[in-house]
Amino acid sequence: MDAAEAPPPPPSPAATTTASNVAADRRRLPLPEWQRCLSAVGRFADEKVGRIARDDPRRVAHSFKVGLALTLVSVLYYVTPLFNGFGGSAMWAVLTVVIVMEFTVGATLSKGVNRALATLVASSLAIGAHKGASLVVSSENTESILLIVFIFFVASAATFSRFIPEIKARYDYGVGIFILTFSLVAVSSYRVEELMPLALQRTSTIFVGVAICLCTTVLVFPVWAGDDLHKLAVGNLDKLADFLEGMETECFGENARSGNLEGKDFHDAYMSILSSKDKEDSLCTLAKWEPINRKFGFRYPWSQYQTLGTLCRQCASTMEALASYVAILRKYQYPEANPQLYMKVQKTCSQMSMYSARTLRELSSAVRSMTTPSAMNKDLSAAMKSANGCRNELLQDSALLQLSDMVTQINEITESVNNLARLARFKNPEKARNDVVINVRSQ
Amino acid sequence: MDAAEAPPPPPSPAATTTASNVAADRRRLPLPEWQRCLSAVGRFADEKVGRIARDDPRRVAHSFKVGLALTLVSVLYYVTPLFNGFGGSAMWAVLTVVIVMEFTVGATLSKGVNRALATLVASSLAIGAHKGASLVVSSENTESILLIVFIFFVASAATFSRFIPEIKARYDYGVGIFILTFSLVAVSSYRVEELMPLALQRTSTIFVGVAICLCTTVLVFPVWAGDDLHKLAVGNLDKLADFLEGMETECFGENARSGNLEGKDFHDAYMSILSSKDKEDSLCTLAKWEPINRKFGFRYPWSQYQTLGTLCRQCASTMEALASYVAILRKYQYPEANPQLYMKVQKTCSQMSMYSARTLRELSSAVRSMTTPSAMNKDLSAAMKSANGCRNELLQDSALLQLSDMVTQINEITESVNNLARLARFKNPEKARNDVVINVRSQ
Repeated sequence: MDAAEAPPPPPSPAATTTASNVAADRRRLPLPEWQRCLSAVGRFADEKVGRIARDDPRRVAHSFKVGLALTLVSVLYYVTPLFNGFGGSAMWAVLTVVIVMEFTVGATLSKGVNRALATLVASSLAIGAHKGASLVVSSENTESILLIVFIFFVASAATFSRFIPEIKARYDYGVGIFILTFSLVAVSSYRVEELMPLALQRTSTIFVGVAICLCTTVLVFPVWAGDDLHKLAVGNLDKLADFLEGMETECFGENARSGNLEGKDFHDAYMSILSSKDKEDSLCTLAKWEPINRKFGFRYPWSQYQTLGTLCRQCASTMEALASYVAILRKYQYPEANPQLYMKVQKTCSQMSMYSARTLRELSSAVRSMTTPSAMNKDLSAAMKSANGCRNELLQDSALLQLSDMVTQINEITESVNNLARLARFKNPEKARNDVVINVRSQ
Repeated sequence: MDAAEAPPPPPSPAATTTASNVAADRRRLPLPEWQRCLSAVGRFADEKVGRIARDDPRRVAHSFKVGLALTLVSVLYYVTPLFNGFGGSAMWAVLTVVIVMEFTVGATLSKGVNRALATLVASSLAIGAHKGASLVVSSENTESILLIVFIFFVASAATFSRFIPEIKARYDYGVGIFILTFSLVAVSSYRVEELMPLALQRTSTIFVGVAICLCTTVLVFPVWAGDDLHKLAVGNLDKLADFLEGMETECFGENARSGNLEGKDFHDAYMSILSSKDKEDSLCTLAKWEPINRKFGFRYPWSQYQTLGTLCRQCASTMEALASYVAILRKYQYPEANPQLYMKVQKTCSQMSMYSARTLRELSSAVRSMTTPSAMNKDLSAAMKSANGCRNELLQDSALLQLSDMVTQINEITESVNNLARLARFKNPEKARNDVVINVRSQ
C-alpha cells in the first residue's frame, strides 16, 4: 500500500473533539447572522430541492410546462386581435390551465374532458332553468327566488353524489365544476341580458384552455401514466427479489442479531410494495386515458397490472411473516437451543430463496423488455421440487410451511406474468433474437 | 310454539325453483321497459344511496350545508344594494364557496385561510411586478413581454414547490391559488386601468365567501375532524380486540378448515386497521385547525393519536402473522400429525388472546369516555405472566414466540394510552364516579 494512501494515525478522541470544536468556533465566529441564514437556505435548497429534482427530472420539466402553458394563455390575452374574440372571459382560460394541468398525460386529459363536459352540461341546465323560470313566473323577484331554490337543490344533490364511491373515484372533479358552473350561470342569468353569447364565449375559452394544456402536455416531454405503471410493476418484482436476497443475509448472516426488522433495507422494500396499491390503482385509471401512448397502444390490458400487483403484495406479506418469524427465532436464542433444526431451517430457506429470487428476476426482466418469459422456468421448478421434496422435513418445524406457501405464490405470479404477456402480445424472445441476428447479417 | 309462527314445510327444491320461476316470469312479463328501468333506478337509489346516507347521516347534512352556503352567496348577489359594493366580482365569492366548503370544520378552515393568504400574497406580488415593470420600461409592448416572463418563472417555481413533500401536505391548495391569482392579476394589469380597486374588490369578495363557508360549517351541524380522529383511535383498539376474539373461533373453531383468511370478518378488521394511516394523518392535521372544538379544546395532544395508531398497526401485523401461521398449520393437517403440540398451542393461544382482548377493550372504553385507565391492568399482567411462564413451553413450537411478542406490543399500547390520558388530562374514573354520587345525593 502506498504511504500517501494510508489513513493518518487516529488521534485520541478527546484531543480531536477539542481541536475540531475550536476550529469550528473560529470558522463560525466572523459569519454574520444574514450570511448564516443564507448558507442554511442554500444548503436546504441544494439538499432537499436538488434531491427532489434528481429523483425525477420530469418534475422540473413539468414545472416549466405549467409555466409554458400559462405563458401561451397570457400571450393569447396580450395579442389584441386574438383576444377580441374571447372578451373578458379570457381569465377562464387562465383558470382552466391552472386547474387542468397535471403531471401525466392521462390525468390532464381526464381532467380536461371532465371540465369541458361538466361545463357544457351545467350551462345548458342553468340556461334551461332560467328559461323555464321566466316562462312560469312573470315577476322578476319571484324568478330570482325560484332560481335560488334551484341552486340550493341542485348543489345539495350534486354534493351528495360525491359521496358515492364510483363517482368520487372518477368524476369528483367534474361534479365540482358542475356545481360551480351551474351556480355561476344561474346567478348571472338574472343580471346579464344576453346570456347565450356569454355562455358560448366562456365555454369556448375553456376549450381553448384545455386545448393549450393538452398540446403542452403531449408535445413537450410527455409523462405517461402507463410508463409509470409499467415501471411500478417491474419495480415490485425486483423488490420481491431484493427482499429474498436481503432476508438471507440479514436474518441468517453473521451480524443478524437484533429481532427488529424495522429500518432495514429489505423491510423498506416490503413496505413500499405493500403501500403501492393506491398509486397502482390511480395510475391504472389514468393509463386507460392514454391510447395515444405509442409504446402500449390502444386497448392495452392495463387491469392485468392490478392483478399482478395484488399477487405481489400477498407474496410480500408472506415473505415478511417469514422474515419476522426467523428474526424472532434469533431473538429467543433458538439457534443455540436447537442447533440441528436451525441448520436445517437455514439450508432450506437459503435454497428456496435463491431459486425464487432468480425466478422473480427473470420475470421482471421479461416484463421490462416486454418479451414473453420462457415457457418453463427452471429455477421455479427447482424451488417447487425442493418445496415438495422436503415437506415432511418441513413439518418438523411448522413455520417452514410458510416457505412452501411462498413458492406457491411465486408460481401464481409467474402465471399472471404469462397472462399479461399473452394479452399484451409481448415479443417472442426467440423471434426477437432472430430478428437481431437477421438485422446484423443484413447489414 | 304457536302454529302461526311455525315455518311452512320446505317444498322439494325442484318444485320451488320451477314455481318461483314461473311466478317471476308472470310478474315480469307485463312490465314495460321504462317501468323496469325506473324500478331498477329506484332499487339502486334505495340500496346504494340509502346506505351511503345511513352509514353517515352527516353526509346528508353536509350536502344541504353546501346548498345553503351557495344560496347565501346567491342572495348576496340578488339583493341589489348589497351587491353594488362588490361589483362584477361577486362570482369570486361563488367560486370560493364551491372550492372551500369541505366536510370537516378543520378542512374548511385550513382551505379558507390558505385561499385568503395565497390571494393576498399573490395579488401584492403581481401588483408589485406590474409597478416594477412599468417603472423600468417605458413602452407597453416591452412591459407585457416582461410580465409574461415573470408569469413563466413564478408559475414554474411555484409548481416545482408542490413536489416538496412538506408543501404538498399542507399548502398544495394554497400554492395552486397563488399561481392562479398571480397569473390573473398580472394578465389583467395590462388591460385594467384601475388595478388597485379591482384587486381590493376581489379580495374582499373572497373574504366574504370564506366567511360564509366558515359560518355555515361551524354553526350548522358542525363536523369536527378531531371527533373523527378520536373515534378512529377507539375503533382501532376495538378492532384489535375483535380480531383476537375472531381469530380464536375462526382458527381453532370446528368449522375452521380452509387455510385462506381473506374475506373473513376478522381479516377485514385487520386490513382496515392497516390502511388507517393516511386517514389518521390527514385527520390529525385537520384536528389541529379546530381549537374551537369544545370537547377537546386548545392544545390537545393530537399527535399522540398517531403514536397510538402506529402501535396498533404493528400489533395488527403481528396478529395477522400469527393467524396466517395457525391457518397454515391447519392446512397441512398439523393437528392430526402432532395432536399434543396442537392442543398446547391452542390452549396457550386461547388464554393469551382472551386476556389481551380484555385489556384492549378496557383501553378502548377508557379512551372513548376520556377517563384515565386503571393504573395496573389485571388482565394484562395475567397475559404477561402467562407469556413469561410458558416461554420454555413455547420454545417447543417456535411460532408461539410470536404470541409473546404480541403481548409485549399490547403492553406498549397500554403505555401509549396512559401517556395520552396524562397529556390530555383525562378524567379520573374514581373522581368521576364520586362526582356522580355527589350529584345524585345533592339532588
